[in-house]
Amino acid sequence: MYKLVLIRHGESTWNLENRFTGWTDVDLTPTGVEQAKNAGRLLKAEGYDFDLAYTSVLKRATRTLWHTLDEMDRTWLPVVHSWRLNERHYGDLQGLNKADMAKQYGEAQVLQWRRSYDVPPPALAPTDPRSERGDLRYAKLQPEQIPLTECLKDTVARVLPFWNESMAPAIKAGKRVLVAAHGNSIRALIKYLDNISDDDIVGVNVPNGIPLVYELDANLKPLRHYYLGDAQAVAAAAAAVASQGKA
Amino acid sequence: MYKLVLIRHGESTWNLENRFTGWTDVDLTPTGVEQAKNAGRLLKAEGYDFDLAYTSVLKRATRTLWHTLDEMDRTWLPVVHSWRLNERHYGDLQGLNKADMAKQYGEAQVLQWRRSYDVPPPALAPTDPRSERGDLRYAKLQPEQIPLTECLKDTVARVLPFWNESMAPAIKAGKRVLVAAHGNSIRALIKYLDNISDDDIVGVNVPNGIPLVYELDANLKPLRHYYLGDAQAVAAAAAAVASQGKA
Repeated sequence: MYKLVLIRHGESTWNLENRFTGWTDVDLTPTGVEQAKNAGRLLKAEGYDFDLAYTSVLKRATRTLWHTLDEMDRTWLPVVHSWRLNERHYGDLQGLNKADMAKQYGEAQVLQWRRSYDVPPPALAPTDPRSERGDLRYAKLQPEQIPLTECLKDTVARVLPFWNESMAPAIKAGKRVLVAAHGNSIRALIKYLDNISDDDIVGVNVPNGIPLVYELDANLKPLRHYYLGDAQAVAAAAAAVASQGKA
Repeated sequence: MYKLVLIRHGESTWNLENRFTGWTDVDLTPTGVEQAKNAGRLLKAEGYDFDLAYTSVLKRATRTLWHTLDEMDRTWLPVVHSWRLNERHYGDLQGLNKADMAKQYGEAQVLQWRRSYDVPPPALAPTDPRSERGDLRYAKLQPEQIPLTECLKDTVARVLPFWNESMAPAIKAGKRVLVAAHGNSIRALIKYLDNISDDDIVGVNVPNGIPLVYELDANLKPLRHYYLGDAQAVAAAAAAVASQGKA
């Protein structure tokens, strides 16, 4: 049996401001830093250890990983960064306030933008200053690989090749893997691992900074999964994520 | 022409206490953190950028790298950790105060321990609690690869394979390389690159947290090298390193 641990980054400045973030590279808040450190302390206290860590190329996930590793005294672990673990790209919504958008377009529209499996939000213009097309960290990608918007289906489509080509083989090779990523790149993995339907994935919310453990069989099929830490706190944190799109 | 940038970690708690550190995994002081951030600001201000970073498996170097990358907005860069970039192992001296040792054994003896090219300090016993032989980060090494003491010659012998097999090919492939390492692993590289004699390397001191730039030709032979930043501050910092072994 294998164990895989997934952590959504701690609270970011735009989580706090309730803004759509996507690929915008915002930092953690002091609360987010504390959440990341708590994740590390919890993993250490529960006896977890790792051989390899994965994260995105966004600093809120990287920094969450660094704080987690720091608390575990594992700053020396190999870390693999991939843009494929980035948050879902929120298109033209990036930077806008979720509650403002709910007032303007209605909560149903915002829920669709946030959680529709296959309808992406309005796209960024390629020339929009918010577009990542000039960003050095994506310089080796084909222009069409750099999204201008994404629905979760799109996110799944670019996360899965990385799972199949890098993460799954590492786990099968016996490496204990830690992933510090984002709400929707983690939901993409959850959807795939637990074979969740396109409809049901809408109801899955991942709280910030709480280690989510998947126990996997020899074929990497989930046996069970659970969050570490206090169950009530976990439920409250997930409910808070779910309610972000209210007006 | 290639550029290679080497940074010795910022001030560590044992630098501050003037203790022999070696492979002991001590942290940065607040001054050391500030030095690391300054290194990043300086590199950014001077227009440096990187594709790949190397560091040791010791946290004072890793954290120096993280702070440097952070200031450069390059937290997403790939980082390779290697034990071969660790500080020279100081054997049975690890943890002892340099000035105390100078009072007890004389400054000449301490200078020999610190700077002799081919005479190592007294070895740790393999059963000494300070030995790294039970440390997970070295679990894949052969026991005889984990030193119980090292002279600089030993350090050169374990740094160079990593230079030849990983760093030099990366540089020749056009990757702009940043290295955050240690006084003696950097001296090992300097000795090799500049072909410095066993006698003359004794006089080479590397200050903490100041980027050292090597300009290399197509065969990675140095054309010139220089520290970034204020020349007087660099000279004072190097002199301070040289004087640590006085009684």
